[in-house]
Amino acid sequence: MARHQVIIVGGGFGGLSAAKALRRQAVDILLIDRRNHHLFQPLLYQVAGAALAPGDIAEPIRSVLAHQSNVEVLLGEVTGIDLRRRTITIDGNATRAYDSLVLAAGMVNHWFGNDTWRTHAPGLKTLDDALEIRRRILLAYERAEWCTDAAERQRLLTFVVVGGGPTGVELAGALKEIGAQTLRRDFRHIHPEQAQVILVESAPQVLPTFGGHLPESARKQLVRIGVEVRTGLRVTAIDEFGVTLGDSRIEAATVLWSAGIKAAEVGTALGMPLDQSGRIVVAPDLSVSGHPEVMAIGDIAHFAYPDPLPGVAQVALQMGKHVARNLQDDGRGRPRKPFRYRNLGNMATVGRKLAVAEIGGFRFAGYLAWLIWLFVHLIALVGFRNRFVVLTQWTWNYITNERNSRLIRG
Amino acid sequence: MARHQVIIVGGGFGGLSAAKALRRQAVDILLIDRRNHHLFQPLLYQVAGAALAPGDIAEPIRSVLAHQSNVEVLLGEVTGIDLRRRTITIDGNATRAYDSLVLAAGMVNHWFGNDTWRTHAPGLKTLDDALEIRRRILLAYERAEWCTDAAERQRLLTFVVVGGGPTGVELAGALKEIGAQTLRRDFRHIHPEQAQVILVESAPQVLPTFGGHLPESARKQLVRIGVEVRTGLRVTAIDEFGVTLGDSRIEAATVLWSAGIKAAEVGTALGMPLDQSGRIVVAPDLSVSGHPEVMAIGDIAHFAYPDPLPGVAQVALQMGKHVARNLQDDGRGRPRKPFRYRNLGNMATVGRKLAVAEIGGFRFAGYLAWLIWLFVHLIALVGFRNRFVVLTQWTWNYITNERNSRLIRG
Repeated sequence: MARHQVIIVGGGFGGLSAAKALRRQAVDILLIDRRNHHLFQPLLYQVAGAALAPGDIAEPIRSVLAHQSNVEVLLGEVTGIDLRRRTITIDGNATRAYDSLVLAAGMVNHWFGNDTWRTHAPGLKTLDDALEIRRRILLAYERAEWCTDAAERQRLLTFVVVGGGPTGVELAGALKEIGAQTLRRDFRHIHPEQAQVILVESAPQVLPTFGGHLPESARKQLVRIGVEVRTGLRVTAIDEFGVTLGDSRIEAATVLWSAGIKAAEVGTALGMPLDQSGRIVVAPDLSVSGHPEVMAIGDIAHFAYPDPLPGVAQVALQMGKHVARNLQDDGRGRPRKPFRYRNLGNMATVGRKLAVAEIGGFRFAGYLAWLIWLFVHLIALVGFRNRFVVLTQWTWNYITNERNSRLIRG
Repeated sequence: MARHQVIIVGGGFGGLSAAKALRRQAVDILLIDRRNHHLFQPLLYQVAGAALAPGDIAEPIRSVLAHQSNVEVLLGEVTGIDLRRRTITIDGNATRAYDSLVLAAGMVNHWFGNDTWRTHAPGLKTLDDALEIRRRILLAYERAEWCTDAAERQRLLTFVVVGGGPTGVELAGALKEIGAQTLRRDFRHIHPEQAQVILVESAPQVLPTFGGHLPESARKQLVRIGVEVRTGLRVTAIDEFGVTLGDSRIEAATVLWSAGIKAAEVGTALGMPLDQSGRIVVAPDLSVSGHPEVMAIGDIAHFAYPDPLPGVAQVALQMGKHVARNLQDDGRGRPRKPFRYRNLGNMATVGRKLAVAEIGGFRFAGYLAWLIWLFVHLIALVGFRNRFVVLTQWTWNYITNERNSRLIRG
């Protein structure tokens, strides 16, 4: 008799977690991803900021699962789902049948219908995004060094980050440190420490999802290292010369986007109700309406019992494990249990020795939060080698104020 | 009075060596490169083979020279040279005047007029080349894993390297190790250790520039690890399905080119005699005919007193230092001395514990040659951090048989 066939779409935190949790069950798993690597997204901004190399935060999915014999890995994109026949289409041609389908394809950048903004303000979701951002930052300094027009030089040394969530805060902090520390001695005609970094957020505060004094603390920490924080302002236009915020205008050569994401395309192939961000609305057990054999987990799932969950790694990891529990319950003829999120905490780093964190009702800011942030991210990295390399790299960067991936490519 | 202005074109071994050797002289130096980083080319094949990451063998030119106050660095391409006015044009618009000009722009890939081959058989001179090759190698395995046609699967698992010089030998060895060791456990349907690697060389032996028994020893070492070596065969066609060698044909999805390079474009801007590879013919003091203020060094220079020198790092490094000596002699009103190359040796690695080396009349093959190769390349790496990271990486790879940069991007 053929074994129960599970197809998992996506090798991020959710998909990998589900695959691993199914390790001991008598199922055959096919994990499909458009990329050959799992990406540790919480540190992606450090690749954009030239502090880490792409390989430091990525791990081939095949390596991660090499010793788990009930998994196969396929590099490809899911382009169709046939709920009735229980098949998916890959890259428009190959077809695969499933008994259970787990959708864990995550989110992509989204410019709210202003897709011309994409050219001028790249987002940060993939390694290619991070390398493009790194290229723009480093090129801006190169051009400023040889620019003889004062206004243009100022524009080249102005960096705007749109969106004051964790990624935006972390990017802005990194941008300021690049100029103030890393590049300080590299140029002869400009003063990189005078580069202007402006963080724009439409809500009244940065880190609006954080509680208590943390948003205000994050703002203060940003201001202390020299980031200009502008809240309550909505971007109305982005062009190749800068950003318009209603009546005001910022001339800036480098604009980065961390203000919007939407669910990956694969959700639409379901023909099921999606929320306004394109996420798949799931039942308490994470299945989609009327199809207990199809589940959505991680960022691509809209789970609202009682409130929508944030798009963070912890949610995806816990949902992945719940999928395995569902299949075990099914196999034993027991009813599935509803998914319950255990909130382990929330954190964002502002820069060297600066961060905010909330863990189990406690709130930390500054040095202690930064140490917690470092520790949590190190142990959460996938793969022992990555942990070792990133620790070495961070130690090196901390001591020397260097950033070691300052390559301009392409 | 304005100081003597030296312009150096190229931040490779020759250009950097010249800039550093001019450290204590009362000159202002402008170093121009199309890229922002110095690249340690002898290890580039390890990036192509996913053993090292791009940042491990590259160092921002600005960092290398940050503490040398008489140097400025400019990211750009030299598009014209006016020998009469002593100026150069950068990126087609900016102009810069020099008192001394040092051309050190190196070589680029060359397909002998068969530029359609370029698409099917990428060469290996830049980081982008290396990443493209890495992508093709890893994708071939991904496709083979899911290929149901036996002949096509065989074609996907066939790798051809054209050109049996040091780079070709090193690439072929790395290709074999990727399949035999690194990917051994990663796939379910194919056996990567059965991948076929074929090295093609038109001369009767591989490593034709090496002396004594070394070419034959290299061949034996290649055969021992499973590389098929075909010498005395000239490639007559390359297309998307494989390679034609006169009457015989190899069906191969991945073909790599290390059979031809030519001098960088900048030489033609001189309007001076070039050799058949486009290299600038230089006088015994490395200057170009009738222009003692213009010198060419490294791979771009054709120096034939008595015999043409090989395009290796040592030649470029020594020529760079000679340029500084020339300028010192000029300043003191003394005649320049002719350049003399001190041959420190020659080596190539075939794989784990396998290499050939000739040093000061002695010839080594196998384990000892490999140890020498490791040691020499580690100490020659530019930047202490790179040395540390590469040593760590190599140790890790040696122990685990892993290759840690197996990312497919783009």
